[in-house]
Amino acid sequence: MRKKRKNRTVVQKFGGSSVANTSRIKGVARRVAETRRAGNDVVVVVSALGDTTDELVGLAARITKSPRERELDMLLSTGEQVSVALLAMALHELGLEAASFTGAQVGIVTDSSHTKAKIVDISGNKLKETISEGKIAIVAGFQGTNTEQEITTLGRGGSDMTAVALAKVLNAELCEIFTDVKGVYTADPRVVKDARKLDTISYDEMLELASMGAQVMQARSMEVASKFDIPMHIRSSLSRGEGTIVTKEVKGMEDVLVRGVTANKDEAKVTVCDVPDKPGEASRLFRELADLDVNVDMIIQNVSRTGRTDISFTVCKKDLARTASLMKDIVRGIGAKGIKVDKDVAKLSVVGIGMRSHSGVAAKMFGALASEKINIDMISTSEIKISCVIAEKNADRAVRVVHNAFGLGAAGKSKKRSRAGKCRKK
Amino acid sequence: MRKKRKNRTVVQKFGGSSVANTSRIKGVARRVAETRRAGNDVVVVVSALGDTTDELVGLAARITKSPRERELDMLLSTGEQVSVALLAMALHELGLEAASFTGAQVGIVTDSSHTKAKIVDISGNKLKETISEGKIAIVAGFQGTNTEQEITTLGRGGSDMTAVALAKVLNAELCEIFTDVKGVYTADPRVVKDARKLDTISYDEMLELASMGAQVMQARSMEVASKFDIPMHIRSSLSRGEGTIVTKEVKGMEDVLVRGVTANKDEAKVTVCDVPDKPGEASRLFRELADLDVNVDMIIQNVSRTGRTDISFTVCKKDLARTASLMKDIVRGIGAKGIKVDKDVAKLSVVGIGMRSHSGVAAKMFGALASEKINIDMISTSEIKISCVIAEKNADRAVRVVHNAFGLGAAGKSKKRSRAGKCRKK
Repeated sequence: MRKKRKNRTVVQKFGGSSVANTSRIKGVARRVAETRRAGNDVVVVVSALGDTTDELVGLAARITKSPRERELDMLLSTGEQVSVALLAMALHELGLEAASFTGAQVGIVTDSSHTKAKIVDISGNKLKETISEGKIAIVAGFQGTNTEQEITTLGRGGSDMTAVALAKVLNAELCEIFTDVKGVYTADPRVVKDARKLDTISYDEMLELASMGAQVMQARSMEVASKFDIPMHIRSSLSRGEGTIVTKEVKGMEDVLVRGVTANKDEAKVTVCDVPDKPGEASRLFRELADLDVNVDMIIQNVSRTGRTDISFTVCKKDLARTASLMKDIVRGIGAKGIKVDKDVAKLSVVGIGMRSHSGVAAKMFGALASEKINIDMISTSEIKISCVIAEKNADRAVRVVHNAFGLGAAGKSKKRSRAGKCRKK
Repeated sequence: MRKKRKNRTVVQKFGGSSVANTSRIKGVARRVAETRRAGNDVVVVVSALGDTTDELVGLAARITKSPRERELDMLLSTGEQVSVALLAMALHELGLEAASFTGAQVGIVTDSSHTKAKIVDISGNKLKETISEGKIAIVAGFQGTNTEQEITTLGRGGSDMTAVALAKVLNAELCEIFTDVKGVYTADPRVVKDARKLDTISYDEMLELASMGAQVMQARSMEVASKFDIPMHIRSSLSRGEGTIVTKEVKGMEDVLVRGVTANKDEAKVTVCDVPDKPGEASRLFRELADLDVNVDMIIQNVSRTGRTDISFTVCKKDLARTASLMKDIVRGIGAKGIKVDKDVAKLSVVGIGMRSHSGVAAKMFGALASEKINIDMISTSEIKISCVIAEKNADRAVRVVHNAFGLGAAGKSKKRSRAGKCRKK
């Protein structure tokens, strides 16, 4: 007799579009059933059905303009609770044992930052017990409770965080993120016709892509996945076939210079003009913004020639009006002249761990933009990323020309190989 | 300085029609705010918005014909959670301090009978703490958790039970049940034009009325209210004015012979024919029905003349098909001939604690029916109630003629007084 092997534990997360209606929920159930019948222990994390969250927010809006966040969490967390109950029923209908749970019931403890809470602890006991009884555990994503048993939610994309955190607690062999795209692409396929699905990507690259608006997965969850080295698989809930495996850096990954190109049209640019170039002024500026809960993305300050300098930064478009009004006092306080804002901008980025050891990526990117006469407003770089702020109207064209310049397309894949040496020399 | 008096504690329960949409929720908030500003400590119990529960059941029906009750409870309990969050927001909008709670959060512990759980314990601590902080506590009706933290629901009308149970735990001075009618009437005002709203009614009378389909309040809740002597006020959420006070018997109540007349069209009649008239046969019959979870209401067995007898009983119309199919085996087992069923029946009842000490009520009731040539199928009586099973098509006419015979109408009220002596003599 063969010794019984311990089952693999797989966490599967299905987003709102995957459970948009009851027929999709049945489809999800079949998918989960397959994984279970293949001999895995399965924990499923589900988001709210389709537009449920927006509908609930709409209900609240008819009552008050500024709902308190505690009550908003009480309201919104019902969306996921509906999903888990329905998915459990669909699995029972397929003859499988399954039980649904709220975040509270599986002991997902968060801090008290309602609407954007952070998970501080998960007691895996209830889930381990459920799995050991041979059941599929279905957990409401996006939610937890603080130590006072108040319901909290984890903010946009919070179900990804639930999935990754559960994968960590359960020592899962795999965390699958099911979404409405087939995986991670070299560029947005709606913009770049020959964009290619990537078979693998590193955590770091994925993190840069996620935080740059690739919108496949929540950035914060990817940090956690990276930190605990949780193997992720981003794939489609609507079609079969492999998606993109997210993993730690493996040999050969650096052979690819640039993994992908993205344009984030969600940012706006703010320039503080004529700031006295004294130590501490920039720090004061951004400390005040942080105190006011404004998230700043890129920050650019060039060398000063006149004792005064301009400081530019980008914020979410939705935060621009608030930021601009808040800035008035700050500007006066630090003795600057005033501010200029521009919301018609986009941030174009190329990402790839290969660029760490290869030069010429910036030159190639800027050259491609110049060939299309696209002006660059701001530049910022990290170890594995180069970002440029450009006019929003040029964003799609810029993605296409840069995607092409790095030979990322489906057609370009074979070409790229043959000229790899050439790239490296640049 | 006047010594600060302890606030009165008032529990207010608002049903689904009272919170059917956001504008009604705002109305409920204004009502609650008034009670609070009048110097009361207020705990509010809310049902799900309008048709929410039916919509959720509909979602489940699209997934499976027979959802497991555990998952159904997980699903349905979200309805009340939405309501409490929205009502809290509406109260904040009015400048009041309020916090919403699920059943679990205020420690409503039930048994594990999903979809029809019974409350076994309530820890009042969270609510007492909330009240002592000067806040209005808003509690999701209809729900609790068992000791395994699984979500349970209390069955139809369960929010009434939540309200009564909280009133008990908090030693509330008053429990107000807000509904879409102005109070308890001498008969259904849709059927009897001059039906009169009662100012007061005893627990026992209300219990008989509630269990006979007056549908103003859940019968089980009324039992609890009676047991713990909780003063209840049944009133309209849509209009001002006093409703009906439910209280223990007070002096003078017996002066009224009959408090009200109801017809329950929700029952069906089953007759088991030719049952051997031996000790234990009836017991065996009803024990088997109970084991199969069929609720039986009236049971009639007349004296036997031939060694064999007929036994009739009534069940909910919705249970009739199931009961009939279950009965086949039972009938064979006890050696009866077969069964006859009739779903076109109604149960007509008159209720009043006054009839305990007065005779002639039955004669008057049967006489009124005879005068309209309405045939009586079955008769059953309790201390304060007389019920007759009649053809369903005669139900409304029967209510009107009996209501009139006892002088219960608005016009009849003064008349009745003048002939009270006459009534008693009958």
